Amino acid sequence: MSSINSAAATAAHRPAGDMVRVAIVGASGYSGEELVRLLLAHPHASLTAVTSRQYAGQTVAQVFPKFASHPSARTLRFSEPNTGLLAREAQVVFLALPHGVAAEFAVPLLHHGCQVIDLSADFRLRSAAVYQEFYTHEHPAPALLAQAVYGMPELHRAAIRGAQLVAAAGCYPTSILLPVVPLLRAGLVQPAGIIADSLSGVSGAGRKAEVDYLFVECDGSLRPYGLPKHRHLSEIEEQLSLVAGQPVVIQFTPHLVPVNRGILTTLYLTPARPFTDAAKFGEEVAACYRAAYGNEPFVRLLEGRALPDTKNVVGTNVIEIGWRTDPRTGRLLVMSAEDNIVKGASGQAVQCFNLVCGFPETAGLF
Amino acid sequence: MSSINSAAATAAHRPAGDMVRVAIVGASGYSGEELVRLLLAHPHASLTAVTSRQYAGQTVAQVFPKFASHPSARTLRFSEPNTGLLAREAQVVFLALPHGVAAEFAVPLLHHGCQVIDLSADFRLRSAAVYQEFYTHEHPAPALLAQAVYGMPELHRAAIRGAQLVAAAGCYPTSILLPVVPLLRAGLVQPAGIIADSLSGVSGAGRKAEVDYLFVECDGSLRPYGLPKHRHLSEIEEQLSLVAGQPVVIQFTPHLVPVNRGILTTLYLTPARPFTDAAKFGEEVAACYRAAYGNEPFVRLLEGRALPDTKNVVGTNVIEIGWRTDPRTGRLLVMSAEDNIVKGASGQAVQCFNLVCGFPETAGLF
Amino acid sequence: MSSINSAAATAAHRPAGDMVRVAIVGASGYSGEELVRLLLAHPHASLTAVTSRQYAGQTVAQVFPKFASHPSARTLRFSEPNTGLLAREAQVVFLALPHGVAAEFAVPLLHHGCQVIDLSADFRLRSAAVYQEFYTHEHPAPALLAQAVYGMPELHRAAIRGAQLVAAAGCYPTSILLPVVPLLRAGLVQPAGIIADSLSGVSGAGRKAEVDYLFVECDGSLRPYGLPKHRHLSEIEEQLSLVAGQPVVIQFTPHLVPVNRGILTTLYLTPARPFTDAAKFGEEVAACYRAAYGNEPFVRLLEGRALPDTKNVVGTNVIEIGWRTDPRTGRLLVMSAEDNIVKGASGQAVQCFNLVCGFPETAGLF
Amino acid sequence: MSSINSAAATAAHRPAGDMVRVAIVGASGYSGEELVRLLLAHPHASLTAVTSRQYAGQTVAQVFPKFASHPSARTLRFSEPNTGLLAREAQVVFLALPHGVAAEFAVPLLHHGCQVIDLSADFRLRSAAVYQEFYTHEHPAPALLAQAVYGMPELHRAAIRGAQLVAAAGCYPTSILLPVVPLLRAGLVQPAGIIADSLSGVSGAGRKAEVDYLFVECDGSLRPYGLPKHRHLSEIEEQLSLVAGQPVVIQFTPHLVPVNRGILTTLYLTPARPFTDAAKFGEEVAACYRAAYGNEPFVRLLEGRALPDTKNVVGTNVIEIGWRTDPRTGRLLVMSAEDNIVKGASGQAVQCFNLVCGFPETAGLF
Repeated sequence: MSSINSAAATAAHRPAGDMVRVAIVGASGYSGEELVRLLLAHPHASLTAVTSRQYAGQTVAQVFPKFASHPSARTLRFSEPNTGLLAREAQVVFLALPHGVAAEFAVPLLHHGCQVIDLSADFRLRSAAVYQEFYTHEHPAPALLAQAVYGMPELHRAAIRGAQLVAAAGCYPTSILLPVVPLLRAGLVQPAGIIADSLSGVSGAGRKAEVDYLFVECDGSLRPYGLPKHRHLSEIEEQLSLVAGQPVVIQFTPHLVPVNRGILTTLYLTPARPFTDAAKFGEEVAACYRAAYGNEPFVRLLEGRALPDTKNVVGTNVIEIGWRTDPRTGRLLVMSAEDNIVKGASGQAVQCFNLVCGFPETAGLF
Repeated sequence: MSSINSAAATAAHRPAGDMVRVAIVGASGYSGEELVRLLLAHPHASLTAVTSRQYAGQTVAQVFPKFASHPSARTLRFSEPNTGLLAREAQVVFLALPHGVAAEFAVPLLHHGCQVIDLSADFRLRSAAVYQEFYTHEHPAPALLAQAVYGMPELHRAAIRGAQLVAAAGCYPTSILLPVVPLLRAGLVQPAGIIADSLSGVSGAGRKAEVDYLFVECDGSLRPYGLPKHRHLSEIEEQLSLVAGQPVVIQFTPHLVPVNRGILTTLYLTPARPFTDAAKFGEEVAACYRAAYGNEPFVRLLEGRALPDTKNVVGTNVIEIGWRTDPRTGRLLVMSAEDNIVKGASGQAVQCFNLVCGFPETAGLF
Repeated sequence: MSSINSAAATAAHRPAGDMVRVAIVGASGYSGEELVRLLLAHPHASLTAVTSRQYAGQTVAQVFPKFASHPSARTLRFSEPNTGLLAREAQVVFLALPHGVAAEFAVPLLHHGCQVIDLSADFRLRSAAVYQEFYTHEHPAPALLAQAVYGMPELHRAAIRGAQLVAAAGCYPTSILLPVVPLLRAGLVQPAGIIADSLSGVSGAGRKAEVDYLFVECDGSLRPYGLPKHRHLSEIEEQLSLVAGQPVVIQFTPHLVPVNRGILTTLYLTPARPFTDAAKFGEEVAACYRAAYGNEPFVRLLEGRALPDTKNVVGTNVIEIGWRTDPRTGRLLVMSAEDNIVKGASGQAVQCFNLVCGFPETAGLF
Repeated sequence: MSSINSAAATAAHRPAGDMVRVAIVGASGYSGEELVRLLLAHPHASLTAVTSRQYAGQTVAQVFPKFASHPSARTLRFSEPNTGLLAREAQVVFLALPHGVAAEFAVPLLHHGCQVIDLSADFRLRSAAVYQEFYTHEHPAPALLAQAVYGMPELHRAAIRGAQLVAAAGCYPTSILLPVVPLLRAGLVQPAGIIADSLSGVSGAGRKAEVDYLFVECDGSLRPYGLPKHRHLSEIEEQLSLVAGQPVVIQFTPHLVPVNRGILTTLYLTPARPFTDAAKFGEEVAACYRAAYGNEPFVRLLEGRALPDTKNVVGTNVIEIGWRTDPRTGRLLVMSAEDNIVKGASGQAVQCFNLVCGFPETAGLF
């Protein structure tokens, strides 16, 4: 397997206008479908293969009529997944597969020299033991964990550039880590006692034929789920612990709400030192965020009166972040809104792809 | 099997306050669930058995938390369906099963002396050949077709009283037949050229774990389906033909729209004789409807400016009917709105039950 | 003004079957409409007047077609509000008016001897100063604050019986106080540091023609609002302070989500003493709730695996309460689900009415 | 005012890469907002002015947070509409105003030499009398009617090229005319007896603060409206009459359904000659459509089993067209799906703009 350095070197030398051949394994779910949309329109990617056991033999246009206006959609056919074939057809392979399965594809693809961008949880953790605790099966390829890069460009940009194996961050983790990490790094909030209360659209459950996600069961329904130990906690806490330099345990409460897409997270944070002037502390928070994200194309800082709203970000790779200091309780409230399938999955994966290949980070995302 | 007459006689002599023991076979779907709701609260029914292979052993409260406040819901348990046992536990059995399966239960239950109210399509047609044409399998019990009564109280009240086997009318047929039949009987409209354009909520597809009915696939989606020969056509056309005294063929276009419940049907009708005065013809239509339904507790005639709206009928056994004469085209437009699970299924079945047992027709429905 | 005691005495002597004449002032909003629904069907109430400046002269059936099947709806007409006339027509008057306006009606109605059940915030607080702080205008009738009873039957049943002036509790407060108060009374949780994260359906904003609440602006939108000092905080904190015997300040974050009805509240609570055995502490919580609400007809305690879901309570006066102890964080999570317009407003008001008049508390609510 | 010919000449000479300065008058409604989105991203347009009395002084980013990531959105400010100023700032002006008001702006802008693309109904009709009949006020600028071009590129491409005044076609008319006109031109269907049954999302009602369009009033509601003589009939019938060479009167029934965006139209058509072979007639229809639209970038012909679905077109400028021949009734059913705000309004306007200016027709629309 080529080293990260050599891959980075390749990327650095990529001539402008060069098209990278890409494939998507598991392109029939919501993340896979969104990858198809983004990669069909990407100025530097040529989508050469999409796989799906269920749809093998059909064209992209047949499976996803909404993409039928794109010329490639009428000729590109779904195939059975075959790593040898994929490695010949594509330089970069996106894996939009369930955890456990993704690793089984990543191993041979990496051996064949492909760069892999995995959207599953398989390579997001450093610890195989934590993986086993939260995903209840042994990690299928623990040797790769040290090599994998956590795919959250705003926080790990340098490491992603030219990486061989990127684990695109999860949807909930993105909505929590992007707002919390800068504050933690700046020492503005305590690492203890963090609460993340999240609302997610139904696409987060995937395109699974389960009664719980039928229209009739979701429309008009507001419900918490997966309490108190959702799988994404492992990834969130590992990342926060790395930043804090100490083990961080947080409270995370996901809720299912009747929208197609979107995650709205409300964070309850305790200032590192009790503030006496809420407005002044709010300014410190604002300055911290501006320093961290002022130039980020996909982070929109809401200052002043606005609060995040998922309808402002759906269909885009943008995360909105807003905040309030509460003089009554002494807490800092931070709220974020993102599209769980774009910034929380496929958009973020394409953003990583741009870094991996040395393209402008916003290519194909605006 | 006792004759309809003797059953009617029994019903006629039922003492006030008498409770009839009832059972529901297949109580895990949307119609079954609604039957549970209606029969738990029915003043003259005692729900003694509910069956479901999937939920056998669980209480009603466990399967349907929303009914948990009803005392019986905490003690009544789902059981495996067993016709011998059901016949001992219940005098009247509601079948909320797929077509084909329902008939298999109806036969032994009738032999055991139960009265049966079937919500499937199995006994709605008189012709086993038409059944086979539309449902693509042989009728499982053709001998019963002549005996079954079509369960639409406003049009077949006398026959339903005391009947042994009632085939509660379908959801789309109810939304079409109730508005059309009085006009056809009165000779106000032509039997030829009728168009019924219907919109249905997603509960009409049943509680089936299929991708097509996931929240994400239905939210924001407007789509026709089942064209041009939906199964309900068989039942609609048979009933219309009986009224017209000639074969009637109609155009019927169902659409799936993102609401939980409700059917809105728009009917395009041709007056029997071209009208010259649209307002006057509108008055004839109004008079016809008033004569047919003026005293019906579950038909709401919208005169004047109002038009039907499903939100006015959801959760009730009421069908709204409104109409407009169009002087520009010479057509009569009639629109109806109903709750597909109540007036289009379980409420109508309970209304039939009240007739079968000699209870006030509105018992348990207001 | 007659004393509370004499009213209670009256109630105690009310003969079975007696009908109380009731009126609704401001019957055109969502709470008013729900009061119309509940009171038209109430076995012991006779709805004699409904007022609305906007709809004066129209029948209830014209304004609310969905109620048209009720005979009274076709004869009862909306009138201009006139306290003298109302006092002659009704013994009990429900006020479904904006805060500030409600008090102006309550004063003369009480003088005329009516019993008043107010759904606004005008009489929920004991302190006129706190009212002015949160509602930004002087209290219109501070002298009545000491007399008013807080209308939350499960917590203030004795005081509501026969009361002259009941301030039905608010929607968010109900979803927070019912779960928290028993735990606070039992000393199981700390009064400090409470966080309430709530999701509300759009009906909570009232039937107001504002762009923010248009279908297009709400569908697909998840958004916090009113941070960090929502008006309902005043009422929640006053009630909690009374229970705790010390000033309680809480964090309260409301969110608007695209459902018609329903509030889902997630509470983050700190045990009074850190627990070592999460399951055991969970049992103490369960025992506390069973003792408090085991016999309450409108509180559904979810034990075991279930979590609250608004779709299980919409259209009913029931609040669902579920909980989880988290061994990782040491916190207790309690979640509640209610219909904001029923248990959070009009259903609760009718429940209070039943207590005020000495009727069974569930009359007209099941 | 310069003639259409000279404008066309100008367009023909426009150098590649040239940016046209454009303005939007009335940019606060849904069509205006969509124009902002499309024109900010348009490769050949420079958005120099947006007007709105309500938002004057605010930046585009403040009014529409979702566009805030576009650099221009943070600097471009809404202004009061001033035609003199607009004419200096822009070469092409889009009017997204109510009918009646649009004409008042068009007149001076045309005099100042601007090209105008109007999204209102003001210039869609040739007859001022028909305008007055349907819009109930005198036409504000009847002299311009002869000059205006009907803005439906697939049917009037040549006339739109270089036009001075384009009246972008309405949302319902687009969903009806695009499917019907080719069949009528080919003589495949009768011009008499056409029925168009349409479902529209709520954005069709505009961003108007009216109770009827509140989330609570629309969610769960299916309702016809505007019967039997909707304003769009005038434009539909005028266009069909021009094609048929005789007066065409159609039946048009719009329904409001709970989606944000999208129109689904079902058309009931009578073949010019009764067919004996439904499949063969279906092939003639297919051939007709392929000949008319086979190379159109924004028309997607659904052959085979698929039927139109609004979720496949929302957010795009594409219209889906599907059809079925019904051997039972002898009718041809044609169904179309479009985004009412894109292909039905702003996307179509930009498509016209591309023609007016001589840009590739798909510029800024894929």
